[in-house]
Amino acid sequence: MTDLFAQPLKVLNVGLQSFADSVAAAGATVSHVEWRPPASGDIEVGRTLARLINDPRIEQANQTALTALLAAQPVLEDIKPARELIPSIAGRLILHAGPPVSWDRMCGPMQGAVIGAILFEEWARTPEEAAKLAASGSISYVPCHHHGAVGPMAGIISPSMPVWVVANAAGRNRAFSNLNEGLGKVLRFGANSPEVLKRLEWMKTVLGPTLSSALRSVGGIEINPLTAQGLHMGDELHNRNTATSALFLKRLLPGLLQSGRSLDEITEVIRFIAGNDHFFLNVSMAACKARLDAAHGVQHSTLVTAMARNGVEFGIRVSGAADEWFTAPAPQVNGLYFPKYGPEDAAPDLGDSAITETSGLGGFAMAAAPAIVQFVGGAPSDAEAYTRRMRRITLTANTAFTIPFLGFAGTPTGIDARKVVDRGIAPVMDTGIAHRAAGIGQIGAGISNAPIACFAQAILAIGKTLPDRPASQGR
Amino acid sequence: MTDLFAQPLKVLNVGLQSFADSVAAAGATVSHVEWRPPASGDIEVGRTLARLINDPRIEQANQTALTALLAAQPVLEDIKPARELIPSIAGRLILHAGPPVSWDRMCGPMQGAVIGAILFEEWARTPEEAAKLAASGSISYVPCHHHGAVGPMAGIISPSMPVWVVANAAGRNRAFSNLNEGLGKVLRFGANSPEVLKRLEWMKTVLGPTLSSALRSVGGIEINPLTAQGLHMGDELHNRNTATSALFLKRLLPGLLQSGRSLDEITEVIRFIAGNDHFFLNVSMAACKARLDAAHGVQHSTLVTAMARNGVEFGIRVSGAADEWFTAPAPQVNGLYFPKYGPEDAAPDLGDSAITETSGLGGFAMAAAPAIVQFVGGAPSDAEAYTRRMRRITLTANTAFTIPFLGFAGTPTGIDARKVVDRGIAPVMDTGIAHRAAGIGQIGAGISNAPIACFAQAILAIGKTLPDRPASQGR
Repeated sequence: MTDLFAQPLKVLNVGLQSFADSVAAAGATVSHVEWRPPASGDIEVGRTLARLINDPRIEQANQTALTALLAAQPVLEDIKPARELIPSIAGRLILHAGPPVSWDRMCGPMQGAVIGAILFEEWARTPEEAAKLAASGSISYVPCHHHGAVGPMAGIISPSMPVWVVANAAGRNRAFSNLNEGLGKVLRFGANSPEVLKRLEWMKTVLGPTLSSALRSVGGIEINPLTAQGLHMGDELHNRNTATSALFLKRLLPGLLQSGRSLDEITEVIRFIAGNDHFFLNVSMAACKARLDAAHGVQHSTLVTAMARNGVEFGIRVSGAADEWFTAPAPQVNGLYFPKYGPEDAAPDLGDSAITETSGLGGFAMAAAPAIVQFVGGAPSDAEAYTRRMRRITLTANTAFTIPFLGFAGTPTGIDARKVVDRGIAPVMDTGIAHRAAGIGQIGAGISNAPIACFAQAILAIGKTLPDRPASQGR
Repeated sequence: MTDLFAQPLKVLNVGLQSFADSVAAAGATVSHVEWRPPASGDIEVGRTLARLINDPRIEQANQTALTALLAAQPVLEDIKPARELIPSIAGRLILHAGPPVSWDRMCGPMQGAVIGAILFEEWARTPEEAAKLAASGSISYVPCHHHGAVGPMAGIISPSMPVWVVANAAGRNRAFSNLNEGLGKVLRFGANSPEVLKRLEWMKTVLGPTLSSALRSVGGIEINPLTAQGLHMGDELHNRNTATSALFLKRLLPGLLQSGRSLDEITEVIRFIAGNDHFFLNVSMAACKARLDAAHGVQHSTLVTAMARNGVEFGIRVSGAADEWFTAPAPQVNGLYFPKYGPEDAAPDLGDSAITETSGLGGFAMAAAPAIVQFVGGAPSDAEAYTRRMRRITLTANTAFTIPFLGFAGTPTGIDARKVVDRGIAPVMDTGIAHRAAGIGQIGAGISNAPIACFAQAILAIGKTLPDRPASQGR
């Protein structure tokens, strides 16, 4: 020891930066390692985490879940009215984004969208009547996720709406999503004016049936190849869907032209699709949901199978914890605002679109889409850093979805709740920002971070269902 | 001096690597700077270069030319038969790629394409008759570039072929290109079988007129915005045109649907375009030609306004040297071959498509299209290196065409022949490889380097036309 102190000191400091600063001030060479106690120092979570991290049953369960996730082959098959696909919706039931939320707690855009859906279904004649009915208790509100569906922003799906049908050809599950309305005054941001309802009516009577006919005519469209190609063309499949929307239209065109509809109607449909660079988003979301549902329900698995926001709460589901939601207050989105708007106007994080990140796209694949920083803020190097960082909380890099600029590395895929809590790294989402009042619409886009508290709860839940290992299985 | 040698030596070596190696072997610290004499040590070129590099008249001329290049606004206006656009072609005249070349010196693919054009024009009935006619001296062969046109690979344009018409809205010039036939057996690779002629006939009677009607219906299409968007979507606009072809189709669709053609014909046209990820290439080439012609003819300017290959020779034109070609033997392309083929099967570098590099796209913009290395060889880091290297021989970075991954840096634009010769850096092209025999088609893709000898000749030519500066103008 005496010898040691006679030499020039080289110090490695772990944890508090200020200790390193003091050593440096005293003239020694110091390297600082950023570290915090896992689970923000919560002892119960930390102990459970330690147990789960070293348990081979969890590794095995996660491999089983991950294999199903990677093997999924989502095929867009058809469009049908929600009531034909989701039997229980036939009553007065409305699906919404995120974890469960009652009418009185819903954020402005979601309430506005519910009112719009009630008017669209003709359950009421005026917005006032609709609001009264919405609050009356005679309408059931259920998360999209409870019925295999996902919807961006408010995520409202009512019985008459046409929904995309995506089947997992490598499994038996199907997933659904509503159709993207474009930008401006749209239901998903809570608008419910006559123009919004008129567009929904056209989507129901013209767009949906024409696309259904087109899809059946081309025999369905595989989503994985489109996704892989889109990642090579600057999309990350959440906030940039320009390439995939164009490629998707190209795939639909032969079917649309043979749909048997009039040339005028075909022209209207093509114009609508060609005019919306996010048209593919909802299809991609349904495909993500199909992939993740294939991985859901594996006993002991800590793989995250859903992240979703209702504008009030952020919720996650984990493969091994059945259909339980683990929630925390929805975070604010940190981003760029359109002219006239600022953070004080923003609703908290909203929508099921975080299903893209959950399946390894969106914020996790931002390195594939550096141009997106013009929209969500930051520099191209940030986009690369997000992707690299997400690799630290995921189980694998998906070799089917590669990023040319990272030497064709796969997208970070399969969030492990253990890694999130252990490393204190929150899953990152690049997402739209809704005005907190109904009907104003999108006011910006940016980055939000999933609350780590959700993942800590999931760890406790998995810990409770997992009996202690017999000593003989220890390693 | 004595003091100097008493200290530990730090050596900077310029030029021959072996000198640095010897110093290092003797134990000293040495930094090596790679350097070669400009113009490969050619004294006359070197002296002229020294004079041109320090002449403000050239700086000014280059700024004038560059300003016109950057200000160009190519608008795709129409499609018309070549004979309506290029009066002298109405006789028995055939346009071809690259600098001038006589029938007997043409490479295999170009001869095959000429025979195809003669059959298509019905100047002969069999390939044998056509070959005899081709060699008879009664047909004139003229570079596309002499008539404001460009064509990929063999670049054959005959009077009846439909050609794209691109007008420079910021100037008075127009440029033309033929229509892309897709892959497989195609005229531009020298195929002239009945299926090739049948397709050309359909392009003349259906595709051309339908697109003409569509373009006039949408009021023309601006090419700069499509190009800028494509660069953000993984295209470099020479060997990757996937994004721009899809975006272009989206822009054409409303016009196609209103073209007044039958639904069957419209469907055929849309299928043809949607099935060809290079459909936009020829439009983009015409736009590049329109930009560069706007910069051509500025006295004293060393800005390169064309690089083109005829499969035998590589030729360049320079703004200040009127319509003179500076040529050298066409290089071989270094790349990846399709199965069964190798370098021994390849024709030398061929086609006018190097117009893309001349205007700052293609190989110069490879950093925007890292996925292309799967096609042309190398790693994504090579793509970035090519773009950075080309910045050293260009006059500016074009802020209208940015590359997200380089922090939205502009594409290197405006090749200065002086910089090429002075720095010994050859312009890089990423390009297709044709089989040397007619009609076999594309057998690979890769990278080729423009022969620096062409640029040295251009320097001498500009030097001759530039009187020595009066002493008062020296700096």
